[in-house]
Amino acid sequence: MKLKDLGEFALIQRFASRFTPTDASLKGIGDDCAIIPQNAHRSWLVTTDLLIENVHFLLPSISPQHLGHKALAVNLSDIAAMGGTPLYAFLSLGLSGELEVSWLDQFMSGFHALAQEENVLLLGGDTTRSSSGLVINVAVLGEIDPDNIKQRSQAIAGDIICCTNTLGDSAAGLELILKNACCESPFATLIERHHHPLPPTQEGKWLGKQKAVHAMMDLSDGLDSDMHRILEQSKCGADIHLDWLPLSDSLKYAAAKFNWKAEEWAAIGGEDYCLLLTVHAQQYEALKEQFRSQFKRPLYPIGYITSPPNQLRYFNKGKRVELNREGFKHF
Amino acid sequence: MKLKDLGEFALIQRFASRFTPTDASLKGIGDDCAIIPQNAHRSWLVTTDLLIENVHFLLPSISPQHLGHKALAVNLSDIAAMGGTPLYAFLSLGLSGELEVSWLDQFMSGFHALAQEENVLLLGGDTTRSSSGLVINVAVLGEIDPDNIKQRSQAIAGDIICCTNTLGDSAAGLELILKNACCESPFATLIERHHHPLPPTQEGKWLGKQKAVHAMMDLSDGLDSDMHRILEQSKCGADIHLDWLPLSDSLKYAAAKFNWKAEEWAAIGGEDYCLLLTVHAQQYEALKEQFRSQFKRPLYPIGYITSPPNQLRYFNKGKRVELNREGFKHF
Repeated sequence: MKLKDLGEFALIQRFASRFTPTDASLKGIGDDCAIIPQNAHRSWLVTTDLLIENVHFLLPSISPQHLGHKALAVNLSDIAAMGGTPLYAFLSLGLSGELEVSWLDQFMSGFHALAQEENVLLLGGDTTRSSSGLVINVAVLGEIDPDNIKQRSQAIAGDIICCTNTLGDSAAGLELILKNACCESPFATLIERHHHPLPPTQEGKWLGKQKAVHAMMDLSDGLDSDMHRILEQSKCGADIHLDWLPLSDSLKYAAAKFNWKAEEWAAIGGEDYCLLLTVHAQQYEALKEQFRSQFKRPLYPIGYITSPPNQLRYFNKGKRVELNREGFKHF
Repeated sequence: MKLKDLGEFALIQRFASRFTPTDASLKGIGDDCAIIPQNAHRSWLVTTDLLIENVHFLLPSISPQHLGHKALAVNLSDIAAMGGTPLYAFLSLGLSGELEVSWLDQFMSGFHALAQEENVLLLGGDTTRSSSGLVINVAVLGEIDPDNIKQRSQAIAGDIICCTNTLGDSAAGLELILKNACCESPFATLIERHHHPLPPTQEGKWLGKQKAVHAMMDLSDGLDSDMHRILEQSKCGADIHLDWLPLSDSLKYAAAKFNWKAEEWAAIGGEDYCLLLTVHAQQYEALKEQFRSQFKRPLYPIGYITSPPNQLRYFNKGKRVELNREGFKHF
């Protein structure tokens, strides 16, 4: 059997069991970050992401600054997803000898600008030759008060499912890049969302402290795919209302122009890098108001956690619908 | 200018300064591991290594078990180089969808066997598709008592330079693989040294505790290249005696057969993954005896630390010689 016939999650399951920590205070494979307890008031969070040319990015269509920014941002998003604060980064680069030094300078500028903004220090890494395209691996260490850790396993039936930003913009941005339709200004917003994601660090830290928040993760593979991760870990189901999904004006404009179903882009498209969370139903209204007063934008409700394990259902204007799944699969 | 015209070390220097920690207790780019202090009795060590197909390994010539072992071993060698104990690993894999699942199972078996032997726990990682060959990034977290940390910057003029194993075997093994000369038994030892390096964890931990040991690092790029790292960081020079370099019988046999200068392989060849250290001259004899009684093999003296900054000289039977450098350059 080949890897493409197995799929990414079955693949990880295949070897995760052999590496389960015997120390129950350690949390390994299966969430956005690993958790390493230090003392009663502090745990370490560790995450790592591998980006490969022509799989995760197309070199001619992303600026080196944006790529440097994005390589760090996707890891900061994982730290935010647990409620943590990022501290240290480690950058491994596989580079062609033919690459211009000025390209790398700009890549590092993009990385450095975000690192400075987020108070993250680059502490090490590895630089090597690559004969097969650009390879970028970033690992980030963060810290968190153990009382504030949010995990994928904490959703409870009855919770309201929320997200912290509009959905589908990044995937639409990628589609526009592939279509070479980059110039109109509403499109620029979507492409910016794809090339220059803003990690939800402040939202994650704030939501981590709220007892009303149960499960949390970041949206990287797309709502449909990522929601399954919460359902698996929390042993519950979810009803998602497609007509509630927050859509940006730019996505609506592009959808009208290209005859896309915008809510499918929002449900399936990946790389939004905002937070997906479940909130205690009775505490939702108060949390929503506090979130709005803190961040000057809404916490968007998109559905409910239900009891049946792994049952993910979609509704549109109250009616059951099937999603036309063409979600991105890694293999 | 292109990267190949700049070279790896100039490249790292180019952006390292922008990321220098303001907190002096943190140690970032420039040693085998980053150092993150935790308390008076414990610091974290972090290292990461990127391995790329056709640059670091040839898929047809290394077994999946050996590759899984080696990907972890090279990182454990970095932890050993500072005197630390490895604890947690993070594995990023870029894989072709065409790869057989059984290949990956065997890769993970090799990784897991070494992890178990060294009490290292795989706590996370990333798995993704690669359209351009196999990509492996491993990051390892270790711990150390701050009093025992050995750095590249601690060599002092007059120190005796030592290594903990024979040199050149791994590079000779690689050459034999490229020559397709794998079958004779003395060659098998060299190929084993290349494909299945044993990280010097116990030696590193023991040497870390010895006050007689000043600077320490692991030999990965080759003695000639790695020695320069100690000289740069310690602002000193070194005299290396080529006729003192420890050579295995297998290397001598291969050198005779293929008309190689064995001592050049020992001085230039990379990937030995043993330790290079400098020892207080007056304490060397006692340390050598203790090392032999602890590990049942010699601590090999190979030269002296001298005063002139960055002056690396070679001698053969007491005469100054120039090395015929064809050391591996990453770019």
